Amino acid sequence: MTETTVGAYLATRLAQLGAHHLFGLPGDYNLNLLDEMLTVDGIRWTGTANELNAAYAADGYARTGRRPAALVTTYGVGELSALNGIAGSYAEDVPVVHIAGMPSRAAIQAGAPIHHTFLDGDFGRFQRMSREVTAAQAILEPHTAADEIDRVLRVALDTSKPVYLGVPLDVARAAVPADALRQPLRSSESEPTAVEEFRAALEARLGRETGICLLAGHRVHRRGLEPVVAGLAALPGVRLATQPGAKAMLDEDHPASLGTYTGATTQSPSTRDAVDQASALVMVGTVQSDFTTGFFTHRYDPATAVELAIDHARIGRAIYPGVRLEDSLPVLAELVERHAFPDAEAVTPAGAVAAPAGELDDPLDHAGLWAELQAWIPPATTVVAEAGTAYYGALDLRLSPESDLLGQPVWGSIGYTLPATLGAALAQPNRRPVLIIGDGSAQLTIQELGTIDAHGIRPVILLLNNNGYTVERLIQSPEAAYQDITPWDWTRIPAALGAPKVETSTVHTPRELRSALENAADPHRAAFIEVVLPPLNAPRLLAEIARGLGEANAAAGRG
Amino acid sequence: MTETTVGAYLATRLAQLGAHHLFGLPGDYNLNLLDEMLTVDGIRWTGTANELNAAYAADGYARTGRRPAALVTTYGVGELSALNGIAGSYAEDVPVVHIAGMPSRAAIQAGAPIHHTFLDGDFGRFQRMSREVTAAQAILEPHTAADEIDRVLRVALDTSKPVYLGVPLDVARAAVPADALRQPLRSSESEPTAVEEFRAALEARLGRETGICLLAGHRVHRRGLEPVVAGLAALPGVRLATQPGAKAMLDEDHPASLGTYTGATTQSPSTRDAVDQASALVMVGTVQSDFTTGFFTHRYDPATAVELAIDHARIGRAIYPGVRLEDSLPVLAELVERHAFPDAEAVTPAGAVAAPAGELDDPLDHAGLWAELQAWIPPATTVVAEAGTAYYGALDLRLSPESDLLGQPVWGSIGYTLPATLGAALAQPNRRPVLIIGDGSAQLTIQELGTIDAHGIRPVILLLNNNGYTVERLIQSPEAAYQDITPWDWTRIPAALGAPKVETSTVHTPRELRSALENAADPHRAAFIEVVLPPLNAPRLLAEIARGLGEANAAAGRG
Repeated sequence: MTETTVGAYLATRLAQLGAHHLFGLPGDYNLNLLDEMLTVDGIRWTGTANELNAAYAADGYARTGRRPAALVTTYGVGELSALNGIAGSYAEDVPVVHIAGMPSRAAIQAGAPIHHTFLDGDFGRFQRMSREVTAAQAILEPHTAADEIDRVLRVALDTSKPVYLGVPLDVARAAVPADALRQPLRSSESEPTAVEEFRAALEARLGRETGICLLAGHRVHRRGLEPVVAGLAALPGVRLATQPGAKAMLDEDHPASLGTYTGATTQSPSTRDAVDQASALVMVGTVQSDFTTGFFTHRYDPATAVELAIDHARIGRAIYPGVRLEDSLPVLAELVERHAFPDAEAVTPAGAVAAPAGELDDPLDHAGLWAELQAWIPPATTVVAEAGTAYYGALDLRLSPESDLLGQPVWGSIGYTLPATLGAALAQPNRRPVLIIGDGSAQLTIQELGTIDAHGIRPVILLLNNNGYTVERLIQSPEAAYQDITPWDWTRIPAALGAPKVETSTVHTPRELRSALENAADPHRAAFIEVVLPPLNAPRLLAEIARGLGEANAAAGRG
Repeated sequence: MTETTVGAYLATRLAQLGAHHLFGLPGDYNLNLLDEMLTVDGIRWTGTANELNAAYAADGYARTGRRPAALVTTYGVGELSALNGIAGSYAEDVPVVHIAGMPSRAAIQAGAPIHHTFLDGDFGRFQRMSREVTAAQAILEPHTAADEIDRVLRVALDTSKPVYLGVPLDVARAAVPADALRQPLRSSESEPTAVEEFRAALEARLGRETGICLLAGHRVHRRGLEPVVAGLAALPGVRLATQPGAKAMLDEDHPASLGTYTGATTQSPSTRDAVDQASALVMVGTVQSDFTTGFFTHRYDPATAVELAIDHARIGRAIYPGVRLEDSLPVLAELVERHAFPDAEAVTPAGAVAAPAGELDDPLDHAGLWAELQAWIPPATTVVAEAGTAYYGALDLRLSPESDLLGQPVWGSIGYTLPATLGAALAQPNRRPVLIIGDGSAQLTIQELGTIDAHGIRPVILLLNNNGYTVERLIQSPEAAYQDITPWDWTRIPAALGAPKVETSTVHTPRELRSALENAADPHRAAFIEVVLPPLNAPRLLAEIARGLGEANAAAGRG
């Protein structure tokens, strides 16, 4: 094949990168594009109920699959609804390719006053909006389409950030040369000289040490480098703490695992001390934020640490551009192995949620919920935990081997996890998703419950019914009208949304929850468990965070 | 009261303008703001399930209430989800005030790496995105907040476009002088000299005529000038056609009413001719677009017509800036009255949907659906018709007196009408909403069904179940995978979403529909009627439009 169409070229590139599911919705400006893209082997349409949900699903697919994902929307009315999802992908380094159908070039050139526009002839507006939340953009023209697609996709590969492609409806079917497709796209490589200088400097830096403490962040996941980290962690003298977005990068019962570090809100004091007092701290794919540092209560000094970032490395004040994480991590592993550090001192292993003092028939609270989950959670699980009580409860769990935690600790957009579960399960069909989500959050994006079922995914869903926005209630004004939501009849939801075979239950006590979880053991049947909780009750970590936010709001209000 | 807070100042301004319902969701960056705003009398919180739905609800409130509306979202994760709704308000001239809570000024000035950001210190990004879809913006500072609020709200009043206010969480509680609040905001006035020159020129222009044909557009609604238009239409020699967005501006059995004009796709040939061949065509608050002109098949020449726009008037080539619609319309009425035109020739009245030839027990199709609705639709109804088969079917209805049609003929974002129904009913509680929406569209925004019920609104909802995206199927590739949606069990939806008292039914024949509509006559009980229709069947006007779009796509694909 020496020639193909723009749409088929783009779809072939996506398939080569592992983005086999196209999420999105049709619209008259993208029908030519969809028809072309869906001619390509290895590309399957995965329609969602709306565009925000498509963006969230694509994001979940890319995160869990450690590969790019794609969604297709239509001009204006479709693409703008996806922007919050794309922004979340930007904030948390997820390579989502947002492809928007556009009116024909003739209409654009004429400034035609057509539907899905402001009738003002400005066809650049929506691209300008997307520019704020993507790392590269292009509006395709036939003669440059292949190069532009490759350029934009390479930015997604290099940066792990979302990118944007606008495809006019006539361009979608235009012919382009197919030769370039013989060579799959790869992300850029490190600069060899820079790697060598980094190696020498790192060797000198580690010479004085007797071990290292790794602090790993979510960017390791984005580059799929967990096996290299695991190899490092197996060497003597290495201990590993993770940031929230990288929880369970090592199986949490691994001897080198320190669990999750979040400054003063770290679950285990010995984990906190191990990171804060490390003589040789190596930050690997980390991000510094309010939540990753326990509201900036970290006591380690990032400026004097070693940092391995996606596109550069740093040793104290010395930055090595062009030393990419794919190369800096193996260099570190090689040097650590060569140094043959003594075994690290034994540390208290990362915590697990302990059983609370209450009785099995007491009303359920978060202490009981997380203890029951801790006892039940099976290996090979993708725990998908919504911003709020769910995510900050899940951070304190000790996850079973081969498990993963999916959530949004930086962007924190409520509603994200339900559609993300769809994407995550499609990308990792061998891990059963366990979705934990509050009632307020679930209302934003509930639609994809039906889509999840239609794709044969059989998750366990814990719907935390605490009668509104518990996080916000904990921050301030718990009785305000805006804290309430419309009460839904949750156990009727799956059947209404087209999933009548989902096993539903409502639990009020630890015993009922335990029983519902036991019933959910069958991976061939989805379970939807409505967990009734008090409106003002929260897990340990969230209570601490909410207190901090509330105090900040109050102080700012007084100021 | 000589001093108030920024939040209370803003809320007082909104209440003065009639925006009594605040739509939106809480988030930690807007809690101080909400607490201040909700201290103001005449402001009620109206929480929605998500932000896009809040924007749609506010838009429906503003359109139907002929006044501004407001929504409050939180920084980034909240506001971005609303952008598509705000863009629709821009495209169709709806004065929605989008208020976004922001981090504190201290955090912004420090470029703090906090949640709901990209951790890059750029706190201007989301305002830049909103700039593309709003007519004015401000990030409030205490010492200028009152002036800035007034400036931005005045732009909304003057232009009928959406505006954006960002409120840092500390600024929400800052003190501002309250004196200005004694004087409610008004939109700008015309320039008196310009009005006089316009009057003289218009008098000369009309001197040669024996009557006028008005073509009225949605901008008349936005300025609340329907009574002036009705007064004009009562004068001899005046006939009135409407664009889709202004259907039923006059009661459709009014003797001067020509019904709706859409170029070659106009329902009645005599309406088309009356507009296309008018010697004195006066365009009042119109917009020129593909759908308002029947894909540019209009034969009238806008360049030689008289045009009364929101902020200027035009007589042929002569433009009169500063002659606002509020003044140009009364000038026109006064001149027409003085001219004492002869009575207009009788025209065939605007069409109504005729009963189809089929039997009452045949499978229902669009011909039968619209005939049954035509026979049933009661006076004082807000018909809310979703983009697609619903809107283009409803355009051919002859509406009962004191009714209104709510839809999005320019922006055309699917899912809009369901949340818009919430806003419309709150703004016009004396008109019962009849929502007609396809299954594909309803899936985007279904959540607010529960909210509608919780607010005591008792609509009639016709859910057109045609098994996917019928509009797109009619345009091209009807069997493509992307045309399908996840099948929902529609009659279970209301109870699941918290509205168990809604009367539900499924109808397959005209007789069943007739019976369900009869049962829906009780305005104190909501009715949800699932109307089963063939996937490839459409009302007259949509079939014509889809054919045009399909041909354009195919031609562009070949080109």
